[in-house]
Amino acid sequence: MANYMSVETLKFLMNNVHDLNEVLKAKRYEDYDQESVDILVDSIKDWADKEFYPYFTEMDEKPVVYQDGKIIVHPQIGKVMKQAGEQGFLGPTFDYEDGGTQMPHLVQAGLNHIIEAANNNIPGYIGLTSGAAQLVVNFATQEIKDMFVPKMLTGEWAGTMALTEPQAGSSLSDIVTSAKPNEDGTYNIEGQKIFISGGDHEYCDNFVHLTLARIEGAPAGTKGISLFAVPKHRPTEGGGLESNDVITAGDFQKLGQRGYATTHLVYGENNNCKGWLVGAPNKGLKYMFLMMNGARIDVGMTATSTATAAYHASLQYANERPQGRKMSSDGSKDASAEQTLIINHPDVRRMLLLQKAIVEGSLSLVLEAAKQSDFAHTAEGDFKEDSHDRLEFLTPIAKTYPSEMGRIAINNGLQIFGGYGFCMDFPLQQYYRDIRIMSLYEGTTGIQSLDLLGRKSTMKNGKALQLLGKDVMEAVEAAKTYDELKPYADKLASKMQEVQEVMMALLPHAMKGDFQRFLSDATIFMEYMGTLVIAWQWLKMATHAKEALVTGNLIYSSEFYESKIHTMKFFFKYEVARTSGLKDILLDPEVLTILKEKELIS
Amino acid sequence: MANYMSVETLKFLMNNVHDLNEVLKAKRYEDYDQESVDILVDSIKDWADKEFYPYFTEMDEKPVVYQDGKIIVHPQIGKVMKQAGEQGFLGPTFDYEDGGTQMPHLVQAGLNHIIEAANNNIPGYIGLTSGAAQLVVNFATQEIKDMFVPKMLTGEWAGTMALTEPQAGSSLSDIVTSAKPNEDGTYNIEGQKIFISGGDHEYCDNFVHLTLARIEGAPAGTKGISLFAVPKHRPTEGGGLESNDVITAGDFQKLGQRGYATTHLVYGENNNCKGWLVGAPNKGLKYMFLMMNGARIDVGMTATSTATAAYHASLQYANERPQGRKMSSDGSKDASAEQTLIINHPDVRRMLLLQKAIVEGSLSLVLEAAKQSDFAHTAEGDFKEDSHDRLEFLTPIAKTYPSEMGRIAINNGLQIFGGYGFCMDFPLQQYYRDIRIMSLYEGTTGIQSLDLLGRKSTMKNGKALQLLGKDVMEAVEAAKTYDELKPYADKLASKMQEVQEVMMALLPHAMKGDFQRFLSDATIFMEYMGTLVIAWQWLKMATHAKEALVTGNLIYSSEFYESKIHTMKFFFKYEVARTSGLKDILLDPEVLTILKEKELIS
Repeated sequence: MANYMSVETLKFLMNNVHDLNEVLKAKRYEDYDQESVDILVDSIKDWADKEFYPYFTEMDEKPVVYQDGKIIVHPQIGKVMKQAGEQGFLGPTFDYEDGGTQMPHLVQAGLNHIIEAANNNIPGYIGLTSGAAQLVVNFATQEIKDMFVPKMLTGEWAGTMALTEPQAGSSLSDIVTSAKPNEDGTYNIEGQKIFISGGDHEYCDNFVHLTLARIEGAPAGTKGISLFAVPKHRPTEGGGLESNDVITAGDFQKLGQRGYATTHLVYGENNNCKGWLVGAPNKGLKYMFLMMNGARIDVGMTATSTATAAYHASLQYANERPQGRKMSSDGSKDASAEQTLIINHPDVRRMLLLQKAIVEGSLSLVLEAAKQSDFAHTAEGDFKEDSHDRLEFLTPIAKTYPSEMGRIAINNGLQIFGGYGFCMDFPLQQYYRDIRIMSLYEGTTGIQSLDLLGRKSTMKNGKALQLLGKDVMEAVEAAKTYDELKPYADKLASKMQEVQEVMMALLPHAMKGDFQRFLSDATIFMEYMGTLVIAWQWLKMATHAKEALVTGNLIYSSEFYESKIHTMKFFFKYEVARTSGLKDILLDPEVLTILKEKELIS
Repeated sequence: MANYMSVETLKFLMNNVHDLNEVLKAKRYEDYDQESVDILVDSIKDWADKEFYPYFTEMDEKPVVYQDGKIIVHPQIGKVMKQAGEQGFLGPTFDYEDGGTQMPHLVQAGLNHIIEAANNNIPGYIGLTSGAAQLVVNFATQEIKDMFVPKMLTGEWAGTMALTEPQAGSSLSDIVTSAKPNEDGTYNIEGQKIFISGGDHEYCDNFVHLTLARIEGAPAGTKGISLFAVPKHRPTEGGGLESNDVITAGDFQKLGQRGYATTHLVYGENNNCKGWLVGAPNKGLKYMFLMMNGARIDVGMTATSTATAAYHASLQYANERPQGRKMSSDGSKDASAEQTLIINHPDVRRMLLLQKAIVEGSLSLVLEAAKQSDFAHTAEGDFKEDSHDRLEFLTPIAKTYPSEMGRIAINNGLQIFGGYGFCMDFPLQQYYRDIRIMSLYEGTTGIQSLDLLGRKSTMKNGKALQLLGKDVMEAVEAAKTYDELKPYADKLASKMQEVQEVMMALLPHAMKGDFQRFLSDATIFMEYMGTLVIAWQWLKMATHAKEALVTGNLIYSSEFYESKIHTMKFFFKYEVARTSGLKDILLDPEVLTILKEKELIS
């Protein structure tokens, strides 16, 4: 059977480490229990085994192409979209009355992990359709909802998010796509959008592009951006569809995710493109960020899952490939002895453990964010607000750590294959290419880092960072009840003290109004905080594992739990140790990356 | 003009930092002077501009293919091989009497930098032909030399090194290719070799495979391996060529370097493959390592050069692409202001400086190794031996640092392009793919690391490490004469003290006979030593730059020199700082990567 992720690890994280039952206490989730979720996990794994994984290589070898004005994708995309609709997997977190199944975000994230690990080319088509429908559900009028949402939730129609323009890139304030009011209440849309993921193909009857545009006369910058639902085909009075003058001008050929369309759209070339305003004028960016925050966590999960699949491929190879011999005590090797499996070489073990530490740590973090999203949704009072603040803080890290470190995990996985890792007949090179986009999607690592340090660490006078400190100390206290875990708990506690020192060094720059300096090492701060947040996740995992071993309440094998504790130790020795250097960089007063009078880069 | 490397930086490094004139004092190099070398550099740059760079993208888009038993490469390969022969660029370091031009290794390395930066698909064909010819020149009989070398040095014939076998991989002791003595003094060869770079194509008349094989009855392991020259076609008595029963069974399709053939060879399928023994029986691996050590430095240079080309592409993009606005003192951005070039954003500057610090630091290190190679060749007495020991120590680092960190540099360069970096229309994705092989070629990073810690750091009671300490302290003293450089010099001096602490913690494991433990973190040791060795190179560069600025003896612009000093500071702040964490890992007594009774990776 296809072995690209561990159902056991996923269930351990959802049910034990992140205490699904606590999430399920909410009235909203009364139709779910742990047993039904476990069954759901198994059935999605079965679906992924049959409909996702077998097409992973093929979608890369026969990538999306643009021919005669059409985007040609793998036929499996159409099949899976319909299946997703039938299974209620499009918009599952929506309210029942909006066509959803009120699925907890924690569960949805876990299910996404499975399909994304199986084939990272496909889930984007599903996720963007759900996300686009969500924007309409949340902010549009009933009339607009009725026009678009039902068909999107069956998979007959697809959805996209259309932000980027050629001249603007990450700078959304420079969007120029225009919207002029029509007499019928719609708007006339004109402009171009690039990098539109899943933006067109022949297997859905229509595409609803949630598009940022500027209504004539709107203020400059991000305050003048509105959100429109702009379909490829618009409904006619007779119940049919007619062209809405959205032309697909091309498909970007990419390094990876070659089965996932990335289109260039031209709106209103014939002055006949209608858009339906979603929500109030000039609030578009605010709405989009609702979808965007979810999309950032999704990207983190896709990166996690891609790196997870690569890890399992490397682990299998290392367990099957004999090469070289074990070293004897004097460093020599007995050439007449049988070859050993490469998993027995310490450096291969190091690379495997690094992969495992990164991918399972990432998975735990993304699930943590999903859980906070549930609490922010269903809880009340202070707890609701705190959960929302936690989610806000964790979002840029949950997007960035898996994207950046997942790439490093995959790089190590490729290395384990030796020269074969570089060959197209082996899967690692595909994962190495696929994951590279994750640091760019939905806000680059640089942008996530500005968000983490510039907004999330300072909002409400640093409240989110205080909540993190509290959560970490709670995990530290729980871990300290076990002698074996105490040294690691103490280490993390002292590392969290150092975060305060770092903030005390950085914040004065902001207070003095020198925001450039405050933020100039934001990406280093991200690397630093990311490592500590994953250490927190590993400490929680190890504590739950130790508890199972001590109480004998074993759901999985004892090796399963021991391996979690071992990997936690590995993460502390090899990764947490690196934060010393990162802290030194952040405390270093020298300024070298802010432009002075003279250009010093040649 | 094609802008893929800096001739100024190359000349600064060769002529000033590495003092070419000192190298040229040797009688062997009496026909060279700095002026003639400068002219050579310019002419090779011109050659690379015209014959290498324009084909870089094309060779990737139309990769090598295997059709009807033939390897089809880009026709430019044939053209360049002939030109290389005409220019004396095949085997230029050989003695005059062997057909070479007695070119210093330092100069050859510098010239390689240019052509490898221009197009990393081509130089391997040249380098392997030179390297294979060198083995024949050094160890074979005059008769064998006469049979092969002259045609190789004209580029009519090509050469390869054939080590790897499917069942053995990196474990050369498991080679099974066999050699049975024939009556005519040749050997009958039978076996298979994989991953043979440049191993076949239609533009050279013959291929001489320097092949490792086992003579019947030879001892097991690496002590029973002999070296053979095995041509694709063998000379007939009439002066023609006939088939030598070396069949090309395929070409590996690869992630990168797609214009560079990687073949699978089958020897003696019809029992009619003759090999000519090079040197004494059972000494093959020793001879091969002569070529291998040079090849490792070449790989370091190719990695350096690939990352250099990527850096210059990123720098150009960052200087041309407007996006976003400069941050005002309160952190806000004025949307009505003009967009700024992305090079003005601190995080982009950080990524560019990281690229520059890595690629120029790597270049300096590889040139340092080449210079030591010259001294080891031409000097006498203790100095000769010391130079040889320095070269031995630096070789694994000069191979590994550029390969590992060059990949990280390119990754940052790709990030600077934003979403375009992921698109096939932009060059960074190709560099990202191409460089990935460098950590695998000629001994993986794991193997280089075992070599560095297990052999090179301990040989002659740690003599090489002591020499490094001495060289570093010399650079430290020179730097300290300038106030601006003193803090960095002091920092490096104290970091070198810490190396002793690390060795004192590691060596007892070896003394106790626990070599597995001694070497289990060898790759971390490589990361640690690599960073410090590059810091040493940067300190030297900064000192030479400062000297030029202070004395006013400016060959290049003052910005050129200031940029070197600035980049040195950057390397110390952002990279040297990281060695604290690496040291902590090396000092950590916890053992987590050596197999115990229980398998803890699941």
